[in-house]
Amino acid sequence: MAAEGKGVVLLGAWPSPYAIKVKIALSEKGVEFEDREEVLSNKSDLLLKMNPVHKLIPVLIHDGRPVCESPIIVEYIDEAWTQGPALLTSDPHERARSRFWADFADKKVFSSIRSVWFGSVEAQEAGKKELAEWMSLLESELGEKAYFGGGSFGHLDLSLVPYYWWFHALKKTLDLGSASELHLPKLEGWLKRCLLRGSVTAALPDQDKLREFIQQIRKKRLPTN
Amino acid sequence: MAAEGKGVVLLGAWPSPYAIKVKIALSEKGVEFEDREEVLSNKSDLLLKMNPVHKLIPVLIHDGRPVCESPIIVEYIDEAWTQGPALLTSDPHERARSRFWADFADKKVFSSIRSVWFGSVEAQEAGKKELAEWMSLLESELGEKAYFGGGSFGHLDLSLVPYYWWFHALKKTLDLGSASELHLPKLEGWLKRCLLRGSVTAALPDQDKLREFIQQIRKKRLPTN
Repeated sequence: MAAEGKGVVLLGAWPSPYAIKVKIALSEKGVEFEDREEVLSNKSDLLLKMNPVHKLIPVLIHDGRPVCESPIIVEYIDEAWTQGPALLTSDPHERARSRFWADFADKKVFSSIRSVWFGSVEAQEAGKKELAEWMSLLESELGEKAYFGGGSFGHLDLSLVPYYWWFHALKKTLDLGSASELHLPKLEGWLKRCLLRGSVTAALPDQDKLREFIQQIRKKRLPTN
Repeated sequence: MAAEGKGVVLLGAWPSPYAIKVKIALSEKGVEFEDREEVLSNKSDLLLKMNPVHKLIPVLIHDGRPVCESPIIVEYIDEAWTQGPALLTSDPHERARSRFWADFADKKVFSSIRSVWFGSVEAQEAGKKELAEWMSLLESELGEKAYFGGGSFGHLDLSLVPYYWWFHALKKTLDLGSASELHLPKLEGWLKRCLLRGSVTAALPDQDKLREFIQQIRKKRLPTN
């Protein structure tokens, strides 16, 4: 069993931005891995054993040893497999900037996504405004660069693209208010460039499938206001 | 003005575990810095300008450029000042382990501290149980090692010691239930070793002052159940 012995196993869930990031990082580094889909309503014994503290996906199991929490896994992949281009630059300030915006997406963007997805009426309205603000911030942070780190795809691109993909799916599924009407030409051009990469297209879920998932969970979790 | 020009300025607040971590890291690296105390009820224009996204301390300003979010600042310090011993080891798996437990303290331990500090009656009871569980986990993670990374003080020690110091202050201030009665000989020995370091004693607040702060904020924020 690869998870207990040699090799690389990813415990993930296909819609999870956290898991998508890790998949892109593994592909960028050319690491072959076994992709094990977890059913989050019925977590596997392996997941509970490998991440007993948080009991959450994704978990990367490398030669039997677990690495947990997606930003930590992405940096682990960059450091453990030194083949291919580094995902993070070597410049300390650029590394801090890249980590900052990746963390911003994990915390702020995903929190707003969850609010518009299945929050209370008030939380939904606040979430729409926040999403508009976050996307404008990212548009301005990208500026004239081809990728968030400059001329080549790297750490911050793979950390942000799952959330931007989710934003697209949400926009086509729900009324996002002012966030729907944003003009984001830089992010759109960047997304197109990202979608030219096999690592990205292999990890991102189909938009229709994602929209169906968004609707399903919304029906189940939306509070009856 | 150092914050706008050359030099190192830390925008912090003395009781903040996040700011304490950064102060220890700077001292360990022998970096001289200007320590600017923020009044969190009346944040400075400089703080709002340097951390417009989160508007939170700590912010490290190095030659006029801000670095935000304490785990990111600690890694920045390790990478930007290469003098002295590295705070993080070079082994990828050990780096991931160190980052994992530092993140665990920032999220889980601090969240439980806040619950017992000024949560609802139910949240306080849950927080006490969690704190007992988290401290037992850390006791076992330390095991027979002198420091969390092994034989020398480093990244994980400086990331955990502010929280353990807070746990001490809470234990002497409030009824922590089962968490008060824990026998933690390994963590106690480790704390003694940490307190032999000037970097740690200079950054940790006086226990009496911290207890008074805990009482003050508790009076102000405790919900009337």
